[in-house]
Amino acid sequence: MTGTQQEQVHLTLKQAYQLSFDCLQFNGCDDANAHAATQCMVTAEGDMCHSHGLFRLPWYASSVKSGRVNGSAKPSVKQLAPAVIQVDGDRGFAPIGHGVGHEALADCARANGIAALAFVNMFHISAMWPEVERLADEGLCAFAFTTSYPYVAPAGGMKPLYGTNPMGFAWPRHDAPPLVFDQASSAMARGEIQIAARDGHLVPETAGIGPDGENTTDPNVVLQGAQLGFGGYKGASLAMMVELLAGPLIGAALSSEALEEDRGNGGPPRGGELIMCLDPGRFGDPDNFLSHGERLFSDILSQPGTRLPGARRFVNRERTAKEGIHIPGSLFEEIQELIG
Amino acid sequence: MTGTQQEQVHLTLKQAYQLSFDCLQFNGCDDANAHAATQCMVTAEGDMCHSHGLFRLPWYASSVKSGRVNGSAKPSVKQLAPAVIQVDGDRGFAPIGHGVGHEALADCARANGIAALAFVNMFHISAMWPEVERLADEGLCAFAFTTSYPYVAPAGGMKPLYGTNPMGFAWPRHDAPPLVFDQASSAMARGEIQIAARDGHLVPETAGIGPDGENTTDPNVVLQGAQLGFGGYKGASLAMMVELLAGPLIGAALSSEALEEDRGNGGPPRGGELIMCLDPGRFGDPDNFLSHGERLFSDILSQPGTRLPGARRFVNRERTAKEGIHIPGSLFEEIQELIG
Repeated sequence: MTGTQQEQVHLTLKQAYQLSFDCLQFNGCDDANAHAATQCMVTAEGDMCHSHGLFRLPWYASSVKSGRVNGSAKPSVKQLAPAVIQVDGDRGFAPIGHGVGHEALADCARANGIAALAFVNMFHISAMWPEVERLADEGLCAFAFTTSYPYVAPAGGMKPLYGTNPMGFAWPRHDAPPLVFDQASSAMARGEIQIAARDGHLVPETAGIGPDGENTTDPNVVLQGAQLGFGGYKGASLAMMVELLAGPLIGAALSSEALEEDRGNGGPPRGGELIMCLDPGRFGDPDNFLSHGERLFSDILSQPGTRLPGARRFVNRERTAKEGIHIPGSLFEEIQELIG
Repeated sequence: MTGTQQEQVHLTLKQAYQLSFDCLQFNGCDDANAHAATQCMVTAEGDMCHSHGLFRLPWYASSVKSGRVNGSAKPSVKQLAPAVIQVDGDRGFAPIGHGVGHEALADCARANGIAALAFVNMFHISAMWPEVERLADEGLCAFAFTTSYPYVAPAGGMKPLYGTNPMGFAWPRHDAPPLVFDQASSAMARGEIQIAARDGHLVPETAGIGPDGENTTDPNVVLQGAQLGFGGYKGASLAMMVELLAGPLIGAALSSEALEEDRGNGGPPRGGELIMCLDPGRFGDPDNFLSHGERLFSDILSQPGTRLPGARRFVNRERTAKEGIHIPGSLFEEIQELIG
C-alpha cells in the first residue's frame, strides 16, 4: 500500500472503506456521517468512476476540518405538500441526507404515484446515481438534479454561470440492475477536466472555452475560462433548467450564489438537490411496464456497438468486489497525511 | 394569396386559422378537433416555428381522411393515483386532449405539489411548448416528453430506434412570458431535416449518419440512415429516457412499436406523452421562487450574445399578430387542393 506519484496503490474495498472512514473521522465526522460519505465514495471507486471516488476525499476532509461542513449532521424530514418532502441536511454532506430521505420519498411516491424530495442546506459533491439507483432497486423510476459552482457559460455567453448541473435518471429492470445514467449538462464533468489537468491530458475542444472565449483543448485554460453545455445550446438549456429546479424551486442557492457564499475558500458548494420519483405501478400499465422496458433494452443491445448506460459500472462493481481497486500513489499519500 | 413554389404567400393569422380549420373540417374533423389542432399549428406559425406550423397540415388532413385519426375525438380523464391523471385521447390529435387534461393537471399539481398526466391513445405531431407554456402561464413549472417514430440511433449503434423524442420545460416568470424550451433529444428536429431536404440545404454533420454509418451533411441521406442524439451519447441517453417515460411507464407505444402499428402507411405516430407539473408554491420558498428565478435570468442576459430560450418566439408572436405570416406558395397550393 505504498507508492510514488506515478504508481498505483492497490486496496481492497474494505481497505478503501477503512481509509476513507478513518480520514473523515479524524477530520471531524461522527460515525454516521463518515459512514454515509465513505460508502458513497467507495461505491464510486468500486464502479471505477474515479472522479467521484477517493479523489474527492481530501475535499470532504478539509471542509469538515475547517468547520464549513457539519460532520455531525442530523438531517430532518418535513412534509411540504401531500407529494412533496423536504430534507434539511443540517449543513452536512449529501449522503447522510439521502439515507434519511430515501424511504420517505419512496413511500410518498408509492402513495401518490409521483412525489418530489427537495434537499436543502447540504453539500453535494458526489455523483447522483446512488440515490436514483437505490429508488429503482425498489421498482421506482427517479430523476435527480443538482447544481454546483459556476463553471458553464450560458448559450452565446463567455463567462461561467451554471454549474455542471448533472441530471440522474433510473428505471427499474427485471432480474437485472436498474438502468441508470447520471450525466452532466456540460460536455465534460468538472472532475474529468480536473483529472485531465492533473494528468497532463488534453480535452476535446467542445469541452470549453478560454477566458478569451475561444475553444481550447487545454484543460487548464478551460478551468480558467468556462465549460460548455453538451451539444451546445441544448446542454446549456438543461443546465439552466437544473439551476431552476435545484435552486429557486426549492429555495436553495444558484451555482453563482453558492460561490458567493463560499467566498473563495474553495470548499464544496452548499446547494440544493431535487429528486422526483415515479411509481410505474400507478401509471396505467402496472403489469407490463417492466417487460415493455426490456423490449427497448433488447432492441438497443441487438445493435452491435451499443451498451446500456450504467452497464459498465455494474460489471466493474462485480469485479472490484473481488479484485479491489487502484488509486494513484499520490492520492494515497495525500490521504495518509490527512489522517495525521 | 397565390404563389408558385418559389414564392411566399402572405396570410393574416386569422386567414391562416380559417385555411387550416376549413382544411381539417373538409377532411373529417369536427369543430372542436379542427379548432384545437388549428390553434396549435397557427400558434407555431405565429411563433415562426414553421416546422411545427402549417407544414404539418397536409399530414393532419390526410390522416383524418384515411380514418387513421379520429376527427371527432372526445378525450376522457381518469384519475390513476392521487397525483397521477390519465387522458385517453380517443384516437384523436393531441391538442384536443391537451385542452381536456390541462385544468385537471393544474389542479392536481396545486393540490399535491407535484402531479403527472399520462396521455395515451392519441397522435402527437406538433411541438410541446404549448402545453408546458400554458401551465407556466398559471405559475406552474412543467415538463413534457413524447416519442415519435424510430429516427435516432442508440449510442454506438447505426440503425434508427428512438424517436427524436423532445423534452419540453417551462418555468413561470413575473411580468414576462414563461421561460420555455422544447428541444429534441436528437441534434436536429425531424421537421428541420425534412425542410432542409425540401429546400435543398445541407445539415451539420453531427445531425446524422447514412445507412453506411458514416456522418453526412446530406439531409436525404440522413433521412435514409439515422439521426444522432445531440452532443452524442448524452442526447441518446435522453432519447432513451423519453422512450421509457412516454412509452412503458404509461402503457403507450415505443417509437418502434408506433412504426409497426402504422404499417408503413406514413401517418402520424400513435404514441404517448407524459407531462409532469410542479407547483413551486409548494416547494419551500413560495414567496421568493419567482424573483430568485429572475436573478438567474438577469445574470444570463447580462452576458453579451445570450438570450433566453423561447424569447425569440414571444417576439415573433407579437410581430406576426400584427403583420401576419408567410408560407411557401407550394404549401399553400397543396392545402388548397386538400380543401377540394
